[in-house]
Amino acid sequence: MNIAILAHEKFPDRAKTALGVLRYGDYDVTAVLDRNNDGSRVGNFVSDVQDAPIVAGMDDLETDEIDALLIGIAPIGGKFDESWRDDVRTALEGGCDVIAGLHYFLETDDEFARLAAEHDCELRDVRKPPADLTVADGVAGEVDAEIILTVGTDCSVGKMTTTMELARDARDAGYDAAVIPTGQTGILIEGWGHPIDRVVSDFTAGAVEEMILEIGDDHDYLFVEGQGSIVHPAYSAVTCGILHGSMADQLVLCHTAGKEVIHGYESFELPALQTYVDLYEGLSEPVSAATVTAGVLNTSGLEDEAAAREAVSAYATELGVPTTDPIRFGTDDVLESLL
Amino acid sequence: MNIAILAHEKFPDRAKTALGVLRYGDYDVTAVLDRNNDGSRVGNFVSDVQDAPIVAGMDDLETDEIDALLIGIAPIGGKFDESWRDDVRTALEGGCDVIAGLHYFLETDDEFARLAAEHDCELRDVRKPPADLTVADGVAGEVDAEIILTVGTDCSVGKMTTTMELARDARDAGYDAAVIPTGQTGILIEGWGHPIDRVVSDFTAGAVEEMILEIGDDHDYLFVEGQGSIVHPAYSAVTCGILHGSMADQLVLCHTAGKEVIHGYESFELPALQTYVDLYEGLSEPVSAATVTAGVLNTSGLEDEAAAREAVSAYATELGVPTTDPIRFGTDDVLESLL
Repeated sequence: MNIAILAHEKFPDRAKTALGVLRYGDYDVTAVLDRNNDGSRVGNFVSDVQDAPIVAGMDDLETDEIDALLIGIAPIGGKFDESWRDDVRTALEGGCDVIAGLHYFLETDDEFARLAAEHDCELRDVRKPPADLTVADGVAGEVDAEIILTVGTDCSVGKMTTTMELARDARDAGYDAAVIPTGQTGILIEGWGHPIDRVVSDFTAGAVEEMILEIGDDHDYLFVEGQGSIVHPAYSAVTCGILHGSMADQLVLCHTAGKEVIHGYESFELPALQTYVDLYEGLSEPVSAATVTAGVLNTSGLEDEAAAREAVSAYATELGVPTTDPIRFGTDDVLESLL
Repeated sequence: MNIAILAHEKFPDRAKTALGVLRYGDYDVTAVLDRNNDGSRVGNFVSDVQDAPIVAGMDDLETDEIDALLIGIAPIGGKFDESWRDDVRTALEGGCDVIAGLHYFLETDDEFARLAAEHDCELRDVRKPPADLTVADGVAGEVDAEIILTVGTDCSVGKMTTTMELARDARDAGYDAAVIPTGQTGILIEGWGHPIDRVVSDFTAGAVEEMILEIGDDHDYLFVEGQGSIVHPAYSAVTCGILHGSMADQLVLCHTAGKEVIHGYESFELPALQTYVDLYEGLSEPVSAATVTAGVLNTSGLEDEAAAREAVSAYATELGVPTTDPIRFGTDDVLESLL
């Protein structure tokens, strides 16, 4: 499937959906839309994903060569940015489907719904959960698979990336491992999953549990995509529901080197790493008694390779478990500890 | 407003909505429906609430004397029990509104919607949140009011009751105190509020924050109705979202004397009380640094008054803060500590 990815003004660092789809998705990416980087290429910013030209908008592309436009950025609150409307309109008028993981559902937008009907296109809102979810029974831990959950010190520190890297490398090493996707990017990559941050809050744990029950007996390892942070002023509910709903056995603590405050909530300082370990393990203890058995540090902000190695090493010392930056240094040591 | 309250097979101990409305609501209760206690009276079970006859069903009542039937029980999952259908049908056919706080919305039930239209009645689903909620900004702590949140060791240990008792007694003592209702019973009693367990999980904290911003500058004290428990296998997401969204200053830890396992999830043992204190305070610390400054023990299961006093006293010793059972021993000591 040929797609264009919309990532205006955010590519690559604040376009985690775009980057996740480029890196792990089963799509042929024709172009990335970013009006701030018009004329450049994906490869100029990120070296380890499929390359593609960056254009200013859908008007620069031949819509008959594209099957779908995918919204590749997820602003706080999941709103639709009106500056994207022209591109979505052009896509629909050119017969392209539009795929989005926003809280704002495209199918509820009168203009988009009308255009989609007129031009026989599909509006795919992957953040729309199924209607039949319910509360957890507290039984996810009963599946055969070992359950490994990524948890974080904040949003956007690398939980989704870590989940995908660990699952892929585990499979490459011959293990039977699968991903439990919980967010829009994971769902777009894996092709299934519940958007946990969009479900009824009472069903948060239940929606995770349902996914684990669905495939947990068919695999030896499940890598559960975590969300948010347990001390996030806005998103901790989702984090807590995933922790308890997954009934994880092991936790991988994800962090970004040098991060000191919560993104978008800069008046809130991150507590010490040990506090995160204590809270995640303490909360888990009465339900599934997970422990932090590995750490992942996002060192993309450190240009110097030696400095990155040193940061990863310091992170390991502080946590007392194996750590890595999976994008930079691979996952061997961490997987050895987890599997 | 004259109402009948449906509480089949659950009155009084597992009918917390019925009991809350009887105790704190501004309704005249014509009857309670409980087919297991037909012919008895509310006063035979509970002494400190308005009395009313208990009947087997709506067929035993004159519907023209009743304005509304209120569903007074909330089963796990918030489902509609088909054994209630005859009573709801009879109510609607007799011209009564039906008020419910279930996850199952009565307005989506074809038969009820049709009957309500035919007989010009209203179906009021108070658990249906408004459509315009969004993520928290992390600013609830900026309102003028001191924010006091009830937290618990489990569901149904007395958080709503404690909230109502503390707010009422604080007002009676001359303080300017208000309630932030977060569940169906609180909303039915107060006449406003967001059903936090029904909102989109990403908006859990935001929905609490919005209520606090709405009235927080108009009062000196806000008593926030807590939900669930931070280590509940199904509901912890809601608990965590309320903790962070409210940005509480003080926490009142609610517990039931003798409780050892999670209701409905009996394979899960409650951790030690000190673990709850550590988790609630630890989670709050990076966001609003709340501390547990009082405890409330539900001693309704202890018939012997001296045993109840002893249990409350032991609870105080264990927590190191003032405690009470507000229904049995009032709130004086606890309020003195909180206000």
